[in-house]
Amino acid sequence: MTAAISPLAPPHFPDMPPVEGVRLATATAGIRYAGRTDVLLAMFSPGTAVAGVFTRSKCPSAPVDWCRARRKGGVARALVVNSGNANAFTGKSGREATELTADIAAMAAGCRPSEVFLASTGVIGEPLDAKKFDAVMDQLVANAAPGAWHEAAKAIMTTDTFPKGAAAMARVGATPVTICGIAKGAGMIAPDMGTMLSFVFTDAAISPRLLQDLLKDGVADTFNAVTIDGDTSTSDTLLVFATGAAAARGAKKIEKRSDPRLPAFRKAFDAVLANLAEQVARDGEGARKLVEIVVEGATSKRAARRIALSIANSPLVKTAIAGEDANWGRVVMAVGKAGEKADRDRLSIWFNGIRVAHKGARDGAYDEAQVSAAMKKPEITLKVALGLGRGRDRVLTCDLTKEYVAINGDYRS
Amino acid sequence: MTAAISPLAPPHFPDMPPVEGVRLATATAGIRYAGRTDVLLAMFSPGTAVAGVFTRSKCPSAPVDWCRARRKGGVARALVVNSGNANAFTGKSGREATELTADIAAMAAGCRPSEVFLASTGVIGEPLDAKKFDAVMDQLVANAAPGAWHEAAKAIMTTDTFPKGAAAMARVGATPVTICGIAKGAGMIAPDMGTMLSFVFTDAAISPRLLQDLLKDGVADTFNAVTIDGDTSTSDTLLVFATGAAAARGAKKIEKRSDPRLPAFRKAFDAVLANLAEQVARDGEGARKLVEIVVEGATSKRAARRIALSIANSPLVKTAIAGEDANWGRVVMAVGKAGEKADRDRLSIWFNGIRVAHKGARDGAYDEAQVSAAMKKPEITLKVALGLGRGRDRVLTCDLTKEYVAINGDYRS
Repeated sequence: MTAAISPLAPPHFPDMPPVEGVRLATATAGIRYAGRTDVLLAMFSPGTAVAGVFTRSKCPSAPVDWCRARRKGGVARALVVNSGNANAFTGKSGREATELTADIAAMAAGCRPSEVFLASTGVIGEPLDAKKFDAVMDQLVANAAPGAWHEAAKAIMTTDTFPKGAAAMARVGATPVTICGIAKGAGMIAPDMGTMLSFVFTDAAISPRLLQDLLKDGVADTFNAVTIDGDTSTSDTLLVFATGAAAARGAKKIEKRSDPRLPAFRKAFDAVLANLAEQVARDGEGARKLVEIVVEGATSKRAARRIALSIANSPLVKTAIAGEDANWGRVVMAVGKAGEKADRDRLSIWFNGIRVAHKGARDGAYDEAQVSAAMKKPEITLKVALGLGRGRDRVLTCDLTKEYVAINGDYRS
Repeated sequence: MTAAISPLAPPHFPDMPPVEGVRLATATAGIRYAGRTDVLLAMFSPGTAVAGVFTRSKCPSAPVDWCRARRKGGVARALVVNSGNANAFTGKSGREATELTADIAAMAAGCRPSEVFLASTGVIGEPLDAKKFDAVMDQLVANAAPGAWHEAAKAIMTTDTFPKGAAAMARVGATPVTICGIAKGAGMIAPDMGTMLSFVFTDAAISPRLLQDLLKDGVADTFNAVTIDGDTSTSDTLLVFATGAAAARGAKKIEKRSDPRLPAFRKAFDAVLANLAEQVARDGEGARKLVEIVVEGATSKRAARRIALSIANSPLVKTAIAGEDANWGRVVMAVGKAGEKADRDRLSIWFNGIRVAHKGARDGAYDEAQVSAAMKKPEITLKVALGLGRGRDRVLTCDLTKEYVAINGDYRS
């Protein structure tokens, strides 16, 4: 893919410190692409806790099946990620490829195959030749070094136009800990080259069970509140690794939800997830606008989420925003089809703070020129007030452009 | 709109005979468009039965509210349809516009306002100036004549690229009856200029209640099995008018489901609905391919429908078909996200009869050149076999092209 960098990309890759207990290396295994890295190895110190959430697809990829089964063990020593081939819908050969990859990595890293986590992103339905990992694994282990985040984020890209990373510092008691994450997206929520993968690493010491709870809570309003096109990948994977190295510096393991040190850590952790999820939306395929949908006054938060997603996934709303058109009629349509309670005559709608519809009719006071100017901005906030209750939610999406169609229509041919 | 005629359009408007008891006229009221007709009046002989189904949107248009309330009366004497303005999300002024329109038509046609049915399609949220109907109504009544189907179908178009009509003959007992229908679409299921409207007329004598049953049954596998973009209009309306004129020629009123004369009529009626619904899909905004999605082997017909709609509404599947790419990986994705039972390792997929995936993996036997040639055809049948049960269903859709984005993104600006 030679798409230009998204106009919504951050100005540069963030400064990200090493995470004690995590070493990274990338290599060129020749899975599919020429002239770029396509394998990432992350190695973790003994005792690293792991948590993960995965696609809800009923047809998940082989690596998702692999990770889901191994996640319960709660410990990880290595992560192998490849781009170029999703190892999805590959039947028995796909399962065998995951087993072989884990064996190769375990042998080289000196751990058990069940402590190796896997993710693959790329074309669906093509057999993955795991032997290619054999040729690069010893070199990856030898090269593994702290802090190579930028290289790591680049190796897992597919149709992404920029590498995605985020870091935050927190204190566990008096001890500083680091949280670093990388992601790939370009269609959260889109298969082929569009799988969403994200990996977050911290030196905090935290039990696997609590880490899983934190992750589940954290994704609800971050990754699960982002949609590019409403399509759900067979391979979406978000793994978190906590090495526990900070315990030796005084941050004893967090084991309970009631631990008074947890809120500060959770806040930083959630910020990393939110930052990465927003970058995924900023790199939606063909995106020219970052769109925040805010729904308030719904009967519940759940209802607000469903209405927000109905708006965010509407091709007509998304094409209107691409056309810089504050077409609130289409927003009414998307509210109406969401299946949640709505009263046409209480509905109000704002684009970037300008109210265009009020209580069921066009807001006679709004100035079309002012709205047109607001719609030219690269970031659009679309707010809907339902006037029914106190339910509120927010999702992120992007516009639907001709480039989206070009990327996805011209892709395999 | 000056879009070229859809390449999927039928070669010409069909020959459609008059329906006894129905007279039609069109006029230029200047609602929004210049240089074309934008109002249709249909007048019915006394005793005409009416049935209707409407959008499930929670934010329906004022005419939908009007018709839904009047439909229960079961009798109709006139139908007024305008294009250019949907009279949706227009609050109190919208309700007043429907009342005024019905009054104007009732006065001119010599009937009660409650016997006047209304439909509007066009821009949402702009007040509809119903006084414009006053200027043309007497002329419409004077001009109303049997059989002006082509003109009627043209007057209700918005972004449609061709007028849509279908006719069928049936026998009620030994008496021939006629069924004629017109429709507008271009996004069944799309608001703004994309509302789906359809009106079907017959001289058969049939009770309103039975007509409503026939209509509900008939739309399930026709109009409700068509999707352009998954967006649901605020205004979708399908009305059926049965004048009963054929009773005088020997076809006594059908009142019961068990009437032995019903199946032949139902068959012809369903054929008209299916024909019109397919024309709507053929004129999806920007459509270049008519796509039939067949799902079989599901756990139920309902599950098959849900999976078929998940495939039909997937932007990634639709863009792949636009790119003439038999991208079955995206079909797997869409099956996986549908929320219905699916077993990856039993799934098989065909494009225009060529099996590309079999029992959970790529079909090693398929010939890429043969598939590529098949994908160039204007009509694509995508079949998925789940291997779980006997549930089967079928929906129609079209591809997602850059023209769709252009039509909907450049529209208001």
